[in-house]
Amino acid sequence: MIKNILITSAGRRVSLVKIFQDTIKKFYKNGKIFTTDMNPKLSSACQVSDGYIKVPRVTDEKYLDIVKNFCKQNDISVIVPTIDTELHILAQVKDDFFKEDIFIAVSSISICETFYLKDLTEKFFIDNGFDTPKGIDDIRHCSYPIFAKLNNSSCSVGAQVVYTLNAAEDLARDRNYIFQEYIQGDEFTVDVFIDRYGSVISIVPRQRLEVRAGEVSKARTVKNQSILQAVKELCKVLDGVYGCITIQLFQTGNRIVFIEINPRFGGGYPLSFHAGANFAEYLIKDYLGEKLVYNEDWQDNILMLRYDAEVIVDGNSI
Amino acid sequence: MIKNILITSAGRRVSLVKIFQDTIKKFYKNGKIFTTDMNPKLSSACQVSDGYIKVPRVTDEKYLDIVKNFCKQNDISVIVPTIDTELHILAQVKDDFFKEDIFIAVSSISICETFYLKDLTEKFFIDNGFDTPKGIDDIRHCSYPIFAKLNNSSCSVGAQVVYTLNAAEDLARDRNYIFQEYIQGDEFTVDVFIDRYGSVISIVPRQRLEVRAGEVSKARTVKNQSILQAVKELCKVLDGVYGCITIQLFQTGNRIVFIEINPRFGGGYPLSFHAGANFAEYLIKDYLGEKLVYNEDWQDNILMLRYDAEVIVDGNSI
Repeated sequence: MIKNILITSAGRRVSLVKIFQDTIKKFYKNGKIFTTDMNPKLSSACQVSDGYIKVPRVTDEKYLDIVKNFCKQNDISVIVPTIDTELHILAQVKDDFFKEDIFIAVSSISICETFYLKDLTEKFFIDNGFDTPKGIDDIRHCSYPIFAKLNNSSCSVGAQVVYTLNAAEDLARDRNYIFQEYIQGDEFTVDVFIDRYGSVISIVPRQRLEVRAGEVSKARTVKNQSILQAVKELCKVLDGVYGCITIQLFQTGNRIVFIEINPRFGGGYPLSFHAGANFAEYLIKDYLGEKLVYNEDWQDNILMLRYDAEVIVDGNSI
Repeated sequence: MIKNILITSAGRRVSLVKIFQDTIKKFYKNGKIFTTDMNPKLSSACQVSDGYIKVPRVTDEKYLDIVKNFCKQNDISVIVPTIDTELHILAQVKDDFFKEDIFIAVSSISICETFYLKDLTEKFFIDNGFDTPKGIDDIRHCSYPIFAKLNNSSCSVGAQVVYTLNAAEDLARDRNYIFQEYIQGDEFTVDVFIDRYGSVISIVPRQRLEVRAGEVSKARTVKNQSILQAVKELCKVLDGVYGCITIQLFQTGNRIVFIEINPRFGGGYPLSFHAGANFAEYLIKDYLGEKLVYNEDWQDNILMLRYDAEVIVDGNSI
C-alpha cells in the first residue's frame, strides 16, 4: 500500500501539491502530501501542503539524514523531487532509501548527471543521432545571431540571443557560458511518464505561447504526431529514466530540434494534468505494482493561462 | 445605485477581478464584473470575469467608443483602469463619460501625466520638498553604482543598477534612459485609497520581500508609523488623485525616499485586501455617496506568498 508522499524543494509548486493531494486520496483516504523547502515559511507550496520540514541546501552533509528521518517519522512512501540540483544527489541514495521502504521517484545517476549539464546533453543527442542546436566553439568564426546559455542553469537564467561578436566576447569571460546555433520555431515542452519497466506511458507536448521569468505563462496541449513519434524514438535510448520527465524541443520546418531534458516534473505540468494526463496517478499505480499501458487519453488544444494567485499567512503565526 | 463594474486591461489580474466580484454582490446582488483586454481569449482575468470585450490598443482612435458602447450595453456604473498607458487617456474623458452615467475611477489628467514619466515624478517630489533619489545629469562625473531606468517604463522593465561608466554610456545611447542615485534599503509599495473629497481613507504599506519579473512575489503588511506619516504628508500635496493609488518608496536609516506613484491598483494589492483593506468596497461606497472615514482597520504583518495558478480553457471553444 501507499501512505504519504513527500515533494522536495516545493517552492511555489502549489498546483503540483494540490494534484497529489487530490490523487493520493483515491488510493489511501488519509494520504497526505508533505513538502520540504529551505524556507518553508515563505513557500506557498509548503503552506498549502499537509506538513513541511525546513531543510538545508541539498549539498549540506546533513540534508539526506534530515529528509530520511522526516520520511520515517511521517510514513512517507514516495519522494518526488522537483529541482535540478537535487536530482543526482537523490539518485545516488535511491537504493539506500529503498531499503527503508522509501521510494525516490528519480531517474538513474547517469541520467541525472548527463542532463544537468548543457554540454553533456548536447553530446548525448549527437551521439544518439538526434537533432540538437549545433555547438559553436569559435565565436569569432560563426554567423550571428547565436544563442548563449549557462552550462548548468535552469529556468533559462542567463540564456540569451547574442547578436554581435562583442557581446559574445563579453559573455565568454564567464567560462560557464556555452554557445549554440540559434534556433527559431515553435517551442514545446513535452511531459513524458515512464514506468518502472522503462515503458513510455504518456507523452503530452505543450506548446509555449508565452514565457515569463523563465517559466511558461501561456501554453496549450498539441497532439502533434511528429513530436509524439520523435519523443518515442528518443525514449528508446533514454536508459534509466523514471517517472515524469520533461523534454524541451523546437519544431521548425521538418526539423525537431531537442534542447534539453529535465528528469523531473516541470513547472508547466499542471496543463497536462488538466488535459487528462494524471502523472501523479501513474506514479502511485506504478509504485503499487499496477501495470500501466501507453495511452493518449488526454485532450488536444487545452489552453493554460497562468496568473499570480496568493497564499496569505499571518506573519505572527510563523 | 450601482450595477456593474468594468476592469480595463485586465490581463492576469484574476485576484482583483475576484475581489470585485465578491464585493459588488454586497451592494447589488446581480452585480457583474466585466473586463477588457487586447487579447481576452488569452487573458486569465477575462476568462474568470463575468464577460469581456476585445479592445484595440488604448491609443487607437476607436478605443474610447468601443469601451463606451460596451458600458452602455452592459449597465456599467464604474470603470476601473489598471495599466499606466491608459490612465491619462481615460482621465481626459472622465467628464464626457460621466454625462452618460459612467464613472471612471481615475485621477486628474495632470496627476496621470505627471506620474507617468519618471523625470516629472522626480521634479514633483523635489518641488514639494519630499526626498527622492538624486538625478544624475553627468554620468562621467558621479560615483558608481548608480541606478538607471526608462523614463516611461512600468513593471521595472529596463531598470537596473549600473556599476561602471562604460555600462552607463551603453545605456545612455537610448535617450529614454534616466540616471539616479542608487538607493538601498527596505522597499515598500503603499496602497492608498482617496475618496471623492480628496480625503485619505486607508494607507497600507506592503514591504517587498521578493520580486519576480518586476512584480512582487512575496510581501508583508507593515504598520510602520514613519511611512504612514510620510504618506499622509505626501497626499496633502497630491491634488486631483482619486481611488486606489500605489506609492513606491525606500526606507533607509532615517530617510523615506519616494520613488514613484502609480495612480491605479497595483499588482500586489490583493495583500492589502486580505489584510482587511477592501478598496473595492471603499470605491463602491464612495460612488454611492457614503461618507468614508480614515481607518487603520487592517492587520499588521500579514504575509502574501504568490504562486502560478492556472485558468484552463478549451482551446476549441474560443
